[in-house]
Amino acid sequence: MRVVVPFDAVDPKTRLGDRLDPAERSSFAYAMLRDVLEVVRAAGGSPEVLSTADLSSQAGLDHDVPVTIDERPLTPAVNDRLDAADDALAVVMADLALATPDAVARLLAADGRVVLVPGRGGGTNALVVRDTAFRVDFHGASIRDHRRIAAEAGIEPTIVDSYRLSTDVDEPTDLPEVLLHGEGRAADWLRENGFDLVVDDGRVAVARE
Amino acid sequence: MRVVVPFDAVDPKTRLGDRLDPAERSSFAYAMLRDVLEVVRAAGGSPEVLSTADLSSQAGLDHDVPVTIDERPLTPAVNDRLDAADDALAVVMADLALATPDAVARLLAADGRVVLVPGRGGGTNALVVRDTAFRVDFHGASIRDHRRIAAEAGIEPTIVDSYRLSTDVDEPTDLPEVLLHGEGRAADWLRENGFDLVVDDGRVAVARE
Repeated sequence: MRVVVPFDAVDPKTRLGDRLDPAERSSFAYAMLRDVLEVVRAAGGSPEVLSTADLSSQAGLDHDVPVTIDERPLTPAVNDRLDAADDALAVVMADLALATPDAVARLLAADGRVVLVPGRGGGTNALVVRDTAFRVDFHGASIRDHRRIAAEAGIEPTIVDSYRLSTDVDEPTDLPEVLLHGEGRAADWLRENGFDLVVDDGRVAVARE
Repeated sequence: MRVVVPFDAVDPKTRLGDRLDPAERSSFAYAMLRDVLEVVRAAGGSPEVLSTADLSSQAGLDHDVPVTIDERPLTPAVNDRLDAADDALAVVMADLALATPDAVARLLAADGRVVLVPGRGGGTNALVVRDTAFRVDFHGASIRDHRRIAAEAGIEPTIVDSYRLSTDVDEPTDLPEVLLHGEGRAADWLRENGFDLVVDDGRVAVARE
């Protein structure tokens, strides 16, 4: 299955701005993108990047991965890919640093005209669309909107229940999850850049040396 | 399968203290406990409560659910139940307000001498133990400790990848998840007590009227 991976190449991960400077945010976001592309391929998907800017100067991107540049916001850019698709299309966010081949394979194997993976905090982290009546709307609490849009089209969406796919990395409180459970470049990037787990009485956090 | 549900009946959910007064924390924690017990039973498990105090004054607890009182911390209390078990034993935390019968059924059906469900923030939200060499340690980042304890016993733990089971409700940032995805008494409790979702540019939050 074709798997579109949207990527903000211009100013990614702004909510990590108090922990990472702009160059670091780009580098970390790019490490996560590469992890996601590799995992999608290992799960049997055919990844393609939907990027807000040219990526050809970035090192390490697999040259077999097609890159489409679309400067518009996420919603119209993804809906254009849905409009142009004549078969099932998956969308997997580029910041799912905990994704594994098994988790993505569960997504791609899930039955249903619309398959949704909720993200923590109300988002939608991944979906599969097999119905031309369904279009995305990523504004606000998108998982609610996507359920509603499906219902209005008479579709009962399938929900994939995966901690790994529900964990997108947006905020400092997401970084411990990457260090605890990540297995790829994003976790390595954090360690190489001095991040480590700190355990206190409550949940774990990260500190930077 | 027997499913032990540990419950802090004395001073539950202290990290919700800036949103809920002590009586509210007790009431909300109890709503989550009742949800978890019902879901465990619907998944085919035999729930029993491991409580830090007597629950007989609480309304609505299913009288068929056995309650053991153990005032000690979680780790020795659970390990005593493991010591006394002569068959597989599951442990499911009482604050998994997003748990569904399907998610718990996946836990109970998972193969392995030790089955672990990581909790967001480094915890362990549920487990199944089928090996007398494994004992729990809930201090700190327990998922790391449980992986290590299993490895030291020569056990490769099975990890169940479930957003619903990985979401324990400890902190104000967990409350939106309950309103977005909860289907039981805990979600009803929040709505009845004036909580509602607020959507801003980032993730959703809750506000109280």
